Amino acid sequence: MTLPTLAEIEGAAERIAPFAHRTPTLTNTYLNAVTDATLYFKCENFQKVGAFKFRGATNAVFSLTDMEAAHGVATHSSGNHAQALALAAANRGIPAYIIMPKNAPQVKIDAVCGYGAEITFCEPTLAARESTLDTVVQRTGAAFIHPYNNWKIIAGQATAARELHMDIPELDIVMAPVGGGGLLSGTALSTSFLVPACKVIAAEPKNADDAKRSFEAGAIIPSENPNTICDGLLTSLGDKTFSIISRHVHDILTATEESIIRAMKMIWERMKIVVEPSSAVPLAVILEHGERFAGKRVGIILSGGNVDLTKLPWREGNAV
Amino acid sequence: MTLPTLAEIEGAAERIAPFAHRTPTLTNTYLNAVTDATLYFKCENFQKVGAFKFRGATNAVFSLTDMEAAHGVATHSSGNHAQALALAAANRGIPAYIIMPKNAPQVKIDAVCGYGAEITFCEPTLAARESTLDTVVQRTGAAFIHPYNNWKIIAGQATAARELHMDIPELDIVMAPVGGGGLLSGTALSTSFLVPACKVIAAEPKNADDAKRSFEAGAIIPSENPNTICDGLLTSLGDKTFSIISRHVHDILTATEESIIRAMKMIWERMKIVVEPSSAVPLAVILEHGERFAGKRVGIILSGGNVDLTKLPWREGNAV
Repeated sequence: MTLPTLAEIEGAAERIAPFAHRTPTLTNTYLNAVTDATLYFKCENFQKVGAFKFRGATNAVFSLTDMEAAHGVATHSSGNHAQALALAAANRGIPAYIIMPKNAPQVKIDAVCGYGAEITFCEPTLAARESTLDTVVQRTGAAFIHPYNNWKIIAGQATAARELHMDIPELDIVMAPVGGGGLLSGTALSTSFLVPACKVIAAEPKNADDAKRSFEAGAIIPSENPNTICDGLLTSLGDKTFSIISRHVHDILTATEESIIRAMKMIWERMKIVVEPSSAVPLAVILEHGERFAGKRVGIILSGGNVDLTKLPWREGNAV
Repeated sequence: MTLPTLAEIEGAAERIAPFAHRTPTLTNTYLNAVTDATLYFKCENFQKVGAFKFRGATNAVFSLTDMEAAHGVATHSSGNHAQALALAAANRGIPAYIIMPKNAPQVKIDAVCGYGAEITFCEPTLAARESTLDTVVQRTGAAFIHPYNNWKIIAGQATAARELHMDIPELDIVMAPVGGGGLLSGTALSTSFLVPACKVIAAEPKNADDAKRSFEAGAIIPSENPNTICDGLLTSLGDKTFSIISRHVHDILTATEESIIRAMKMIWERMKIVVEPSSAVPLAVILEHGERFAGKRVGIILSGGNVDLTKLPWREGNAV
């Protein structure tokens, strides 16, 4: 398989339909007034496991042949992909092997265990992660499912924007946050097929702007010491996601940490929904770059809602 | 007008339709598993002004004749009813006069001002509140709209349960929190008309259990020094709400503060929605009285989502 076609995205939509939620799209009068735009929020925070990642993981797991799936699936992730792959594997009735850094938060370890996956801990370095993964794959024969640099994952993530375009026709702009680029490249692909006139604008934390720099340089520049509250956006692009993003994304704009926290609080207060910091980056970008969005119909993919409620980024008396 | 009929509730639904949201009903696999019941959450936290109160206020304001409405409306409230009445009056283009205690939180004052209402501050006592209201009503000629002990308010609140029963047929039990009893009596009325076999069970904080004691005594026992996180449930029943509750509510069950906080956190974490403490009391009751709900289809009215995000009742490392 190469770069996903529209038929492959539609195949993914059909494949995940028995398992994934068809999430709602919400609007908010106050946020429209503040931004002078018409915003449509696609609520992947309401998705199974609380994040869009379940779409890609389900598509990848259920695309395997019985022979490929026989020995289970494996990945390295301390975040939403780990939970998503664990649940997708459980739904297919095959084992999931998850490599996690040994300093991963207990709540995430518990969640992955709760779906019946087997966890192997490693040192919190890229080298340890990859060598541990190799060892586990050799021992088990499991199929490795990369968190984002995988065509089936990308085709699965693309189903979120496909639903958004089906529910809200004629968007002027669609936005997604960008980390490894799975959600963004899926969003860009669906948009290019379904609403070619719609611009795709990615949103990235200013303090982790490797995707923007890669986009402008025309080559992948790895993320170095990202310092952002958006724990889902720390990774670098892969060659597959980069190839789609280069071709089908129109611009990548950044937002400061302060704007991201402000946008996150506005979404919680005004929309009454729980979103993780990564989800707030597109609104933060709109707040910082208002002139680009005024008067437009803007679709925003809210990536997820997994956040530690005891560690929120605002404090009493905080002006944010 | 006396006790609202089904036709009057349907009239209220038609009257508020141009202004109020028809809120969604959500379900959650995890909460069903934990409670061994099938729970349907009617999301009034997504209602305009963030609470069911907008239904009653809109019905009351738009039920006034032009002559009655000419001099505006007035009420005393430091909570959601104040905002709801202010917005409903703005929608009709008439003045709203709100009496608030001078120690009301700035965020609530700002919200009421934001809807263009005129605020008169008073000492934080019942006597001061009532005498200030009298003065304002005499000065302005405004129509007094009581927060809950008013048939039009009750008929408006009844539209939430009406929608729930239309969306989710054949509920075994429907639940609402109880403070002054406006939401509960509306819920009980709609249920008695539309699904007579469905039991109505009210949920009340153990630390503010005057409605339970009134229900059991057969006479209104005023709330005394309630000590609960549920700031929406501090008031006592009125004669109108009590008359409906006595007749159409099957039971009132209480929950501890600890259960309420636990239930609130479960709703935020698992459903990814923001609800105020009062909204969590029904789930807290189910967690404490599981045997009453096991195997049942239970509708729950989530009353609202107005909460200060910088003052949440859980802390890092908190076992709740």
